[in-house]
Amino acid sequence: MEDILIANNKKKSSELIEELRGLTPIFECTIATTQTAKIQGISAAGAYPEITDYTPPADVELLFYGKCKCISGVPVTPDGIPTPALITMSALELAEISTFVVNAGLNIKPYVPFMEVGGKSGESIVTGKAVSEVQEVYERSVLLGKELAKTADYLVMGESIPGGTTTALAVLLELGINAEGKVSSSMPNNPHDIKIDTVNKAMKSALLTKGALKDSPLEAISKVGDPMQVVHTGIAIGAKDKIPVMLAGGTQMAAILALIDATVSNIDNIFIGTTKWIIEDKTSDLKGLVNQIADIPILAANLDFNTSNQGLQKYEEGAVKEGVGAGGASIAAILRREEINKEVLLKRIEHNYEKLIN
Amino acid sequence: MEDILIANNKKKSSELIEELRGLTPIFECTIATTQTAKIQGISAAGAYPEITDYTPPADVELLFYGKCKCISGVPVTPDGIPTPALITMSALELAEISTFVVNAGLNIKPYVPFMEVGGKSGESIVTGKAVSEVQEVYERSVLLGKELAKTADYLVMGESIPGGTTTALAVLLELGINAEGKVSSSMPNNPHDIKIDTVNKAMKSALLTKGALKDSPLEAISKVGDPMQVVHTGIAIGAKDKIPVMLAGGTQMAAILALIDATVSNIDNIFIGTTKWIIEDKTSDLKGLVNQIADIPILAANLDFNTSNQGLQKYEEGAVKEGVGAGGASIAAILRREEINKEVLLKRIEHNYEKLIN
Repeated sequence: MEDILIANNKKKSSELIEELRGLTPIFECTIATTQTAKIQGISAAGAYPEITDYTPPADVELLFYGKCKCISGVPVTPDGIPTPALITMSALELAEISTFVVNAGLNIKPYVPFMEVGGKSGESIVTGKAVSEVQEVYERSVLLGKELAKTADYLVMGESIPGGTTTALAVLLELGINAEGKVSSSMPNNPHDIKIDTVNKAMKSALLTKGALKDSPLEAISKVGDPMQVVHTGIAIGAKDKIPVMLAGGTQMAAILALIDATVSNIDNIFIGTTKWIIEDKTSDLKGLVNQIADIPILAANLDFNTSNQGLQKYEEGAVKEGVGAGGASIAAILRREEINKEVLLKRIEHNYEKLIN
Repeated sequence: MEDILIANNKKKSSELIEELRGLTPIFECTIATTQTAKIQGISAAGAYPEITDYTPPADVELLFYGKCKCISGVPVTPDGIPTPALITMSALELAEISTFVVNAGLNIKPYVPFMEVGGKSGESIVTGKAVSEVQEVYERSVLLGKELAKTADYLVMGESIPGGTTTALAVLLELGINAEGKVSSSMPNNPHDIKIDTVNKAMKSALLTKGALKDSPLEAISKVGDPMQVVHTGIAIGAKDKIPVMLAGGTQMAAILALIDATVSNIDNIFIGTTKWIIEDKTSDLKGLVNQIADIPILAANLDFNTSNQGLQKYEEGAVKEGVGAGGASIAAILRREEINKEVLLKRIEHNYEKLIN
């Protein structure tokens, strides 16, 4: 079995894989929190809604220290399944990939070096005023993307933001994409109804109809989006004229793709890196979202946790699926060093998992 | 005339120049402010003492935007001579060198992307309690240095911290280095008396004698140092096992060298990059300081402003001399691209100067 699956545009994807092999990427991880994530039933990125403020900082602490500092243990879903940051950490560690964290808006700051671009934690989208100061944060993020592109061969852009698929849904709809029932979830039973209901409330508060902001991407974020989106859009736009940019994540990255397209009408050099669990997910449709925007490469790390220990096996049942750029970091690690394949990666993930639970 | 002068260890310096030619560095700029800088007569990094809070953020804004945002105009000395960030900006722009700003401790934050490592603006050293949380900030800076070293071929570490030579003097003395009368100044008439008087007061408050903290570098910083020192020491130590690290500055970098040496007893891969004005300065002695610690390479950008316009000519009279990694950034630009030499660099500096004053 292959280590990297191709899920869209076979020709471009194959060429891209060959182009990136052996190169030195930077892994950038944008983290943020919102009040949207605290709506009951929206997010499984934390054992209970209020703790989602700690999930993104804890995730990046795991990347730097191999353990969390702002919480004890590691972030888990309400069912106790560990954060995908465990996968990301293992991949970055194995391939010695440089990691930069960007604070898009947090209430709790991580105990690691992180980049500031002026962002603040997001409000609930049901207010219709989700994100403040998008223009300033966008501009600084573009600058950051330009600097990263001067030193990296390519960029892998991961995220940790609880509730991110709901804000992705809202932004996709505002940009005129048919997205209902298509965004993914960290839960095995994707709560589409709660998400659609939340987004409908948001649009009502913001006095918006679907597609109304298709030419105003930053306004869409400021009204019904999240802080990660403005930073990711800015960094990608700043970097993509110089180097390939991998949006590392699930359906949230379709929203970023749509935002980039609506901002600069050019998605050259942009592609998506995700996990097998996202592309095999029957409750969402990443490919269907992406192809409404552009026929770009989608790569997926072919991780297989079927024979692994209990906590990790749950990934095969549809829990978690993706996050903290787990799929993209895995792809980047496999591409960077010949000796890294999905088996080597799995061993490291299991090893790190054992260390963490003991 | 050569573009890069060798000021110490001719053999190692020549080898280093050949080793670095054509490589892709990262320029890292650590910025901080302190109450020490507000002591009358200590610093010329600002038109008057209170404005030194704005000088470091304004300096890095100049690097990113070609103009400042948090102040109008650019930082100047009390005599109106422009900041050396003008040199740095021109060098980085010409050679397209990736720039990362690290906030070591500021009251005023710059409108650029910058890295946070948990630092706070420094107190006056005369309190004997100059810098808080040095251990935490040090550890995060080491982590940052490791990440930078995974992506850069080598690191150029500049700084902007008003009053930095006084805190350098204090730390050098605490580490047992004979430093009195040897640190440089941004003023043509180096105010050694004010500096020594300030340092004596600091030592008295901290109940210290010279050399007392030669085995406790972080304690020396926390009592009589500045926030830049802890970040610079940490980043350099984090990076140097993997890549060459250029400490880009004047005599402040001798203090960093001493701090690194006292922390890890190993200064392999560390060298100094500065300006001609520092090595020709009769009121200070960078080489004499460095060689008390180790016989490492010292390179100097051979910039010549003699035939330039008025504001810049003052550099030839001993004003400013160095700062914001001006010498190091110039060296890195010259080494990176064959077509960049001191004449090309001077033209760009003059061009940028004209743009700024008009």
